[in-house]
Amino acid sequence: MSRLPDYIYFEETPHNQLDRLVQELAPDQVAILVDEHTKQHCLPIVANDTYNIIEIQSGEIHKTLETCALVWQKMTELGMSRDSLLVNLGGGVISDMGGFIAATYKRGIRFINVPTTLLSQVDASIGGKIGIDFQGLKNHIGLFRDPEAVILSSVFLKSLDRRQLFSGFAEVIKHGLIWDRDYFDQIKSTKFPEEVDWVSLLKRSVEIKSEVVLADPFEKGLRKILNFGHTFGHAVETYHLDKGIGMFHGEAIIIGMIMEMHLSYQKEWLVDSDLEKVSKWLIELYGLVNTVPSSEELVQLMRHDKKNTADQINFSIINQVGACTYDVHFDELQIESAVEFYRNLNE
Amino acid sequence: MSRLPDYIYFEETPHNQLDRLVQELAPDQVAILVDEHTKQHCLPIVANDTYNIIEIQSGEIHKTLETCALVWQKMTELGMSRDSLLVNLGGGVISDMGGFIAATYKRGIRFINVPTTLLSQVDASIGGKIGIDFQGLKNHIGLFRDPEAVILSSVFLKSLDRRQLFSGFAEVIKHGLIWDRDYFDQIKSTKFPEEVDWVSLLKRSVEIKSEVVLADPFEKGLRKILNFGHTFGHAVETYHLDKGIGMFHGEAIIIGMIMEMHLSYQKEWLVDSDLEKVSKWLIELYGLVNTVPSSEELVQLMRHDKKNTADQINFSIINQVGACTYDVHFDELQIESAVEFYRNLNE
Repeated sequence: MSRLPDYIYFEETPHNQLDRLVQELAPDQVAILVDEHTKQHCLPIVANDTYNIIEIQSGEIHKTLETCALVWQKMTELGMSRDSLLVNLGGGVISDMGGFIAATYKRGIRFINVPTTLLSQVDASIGGKIGIDFQGLKNHIGLFRDPEAVILSSVFLKSLDRRQLFSGFAEVIKHGLIWDRDYFDQIKSTKFPEEVDWVSLLKRSVEIKSEVVLADPFEKGLRKILNFGHTFGHAVETYHLDKGIGMFHGEAIIIGMIMEMHLSYQKEWLVDSDLEKVSKWLIELYGLVNTVPSSEELVQLMRHDKKNTADQINFSIINQVGACTYDVHFDELQIESAVEFYRNLNE
Repeated sequence: MSRLPDYIYFEETPHNQLDRLVQELAPDQVAILVDEHTKQHCLPIVANDTYNIIEIQSGEIHKTLETCALVWQKMTELGMSRDSLLVNLGGGVISDMGGFIAATYKRGIRFINVPTTLLSQVDASIGGKIGIDFQGLKNHIGLFRDPEAVILSSVFLKSLDRRQLFSGFAEVIKHGLIWDRDYFDQIKSTKFPEEVDWVSLLKRSVEIKSEVVLADPFEKGLRKILNFGHTFGHAVETYHLDKGIGMFHGEAIIIGMIMEMHLSYQKEWLVDSDLEKVSKWLIELYGLVNTVPSSEELVQLMRHDKKNTADQINFSIINQVGACTYDVHFDELQIESAVEFYRNLNE
């Protein structure tokens, strides 16, 4: 039995699915939001002469209010109305920001996500979280809103380089670690990306994410387990972006997951052998990052994380492989110890 | 039987009600959003030492993304979290923009409206429409979200000047015209503002607005009747603001209602005598504005109204006093005729 929401479509010929949906939704205008990469590599796959194209610059650095203003202006010039449709063709930046742009244009128009990176396919495009960064704080401004449809297709993955694939794979690994030990074992024993069966990987990861989100859409409880690796991970990512050091989201999350597994180990939840085995495998896949800052710097960044209140940093940590607990707190010594564990690992 | 939603409170000692609500909602921080006027005249009425104050500049001209960014920055500096509360103390600009700021900060925090003008009490603070202006287009960016509570109190009206009271009264008149002939007759026969029973006026107007909104929260149908006077009215308002001519919202709506009554008259719905009688009364109360532009200029502005699709301008017009119909269309000649009717009126 599939646990997928009915607005998620797996389709190896995505332009057919998009044209069908447009026909069904009957918008008065359609605009496709792209960046320079998806314009070149992905737009030819879904293009249709009747769709308008709105292009923005790629990259997290452009996931800002200023870019939103440019797109709203373009939509206004095109005469897009409340009955128009925005199609977000791209990675997490496009689906997060495009969703926010659509959900607030004239108090909200419909939008469809066509995620083109593995990361956005298994994560950003599903679950209704939309928004932008603000003054270096990730997703600081945003809201919850589901798209009309999400079209998932492995054809887009062919244009991705290895580093982007690995960035998305970090969230796939997370799905295994927090929810399904068998899935984790299967992922771990399949050579990535060479031997992967994309459709079954996409399906299982999206199934896990959807199942968690449907149980708790607004992140009052269970949904927080999807933040495993993300409390440290966001801080690590923000730190590197602030310093101008290129880092992909998944690369930061790998570091965050290793640190947060160590927190679990300190609680004597995760056993020593699992901590060692999983960390070793992740370092083999992703290498060791030697620009990770001190725990003081990370703590300061974590205090601004949306997940945290003024006084307390909330962690979601796996208590064993395949199970996760949320709203767990640690003192600064424990946090320091987790950071040092990562910094002392060897390749 | 009251048809008021249970989150609307009538309270002549509003600080008591606010403190009670804060106690009940138990936020980790409270900030009150004010402008320089409400800081001086209204804040002393609701102040509490434990609440933070965030001040913005008054006026529709500041209902922008830039002001939102300043407030989000201040909230971030205060360390406000997902569990914090924003109190919007002011007129329509404060409740529209404050609602939008709260609904998008960290994907949405709770907010309370304490409207301090008659206009925002009977209109802006109720119904969940929140947003900001964008490139001169009113409420072009926004969404639907209800506050946790609305506290209505006539004590704030004491600090308003006559022009502000009359601006709000335009929406009260609209409520009578679209929904309740008896209410309209009663309003018309009571000298405004000298003889008004504020509590019963606030209650009946809020009751009408709430009843309509509850039947159709997202304006798919019935709610559109609240736009009576607003298709022409918004265009008139935008035109004057663009020209730097000060005009209050209600003043523009009065002009819009007169023009739209003439549209109804052209359809032979509204009878001649009602058109004459109501128009005459409105001109007596509000005077005649001699800077109203040609219908060509108004049509161009109306095409950008959220209520309209690319090809068609939608009007909500009363078909008699106390009843209203929506999605009515007119050709350019009819529109011109309505504009000329207003421009040819005499004081």
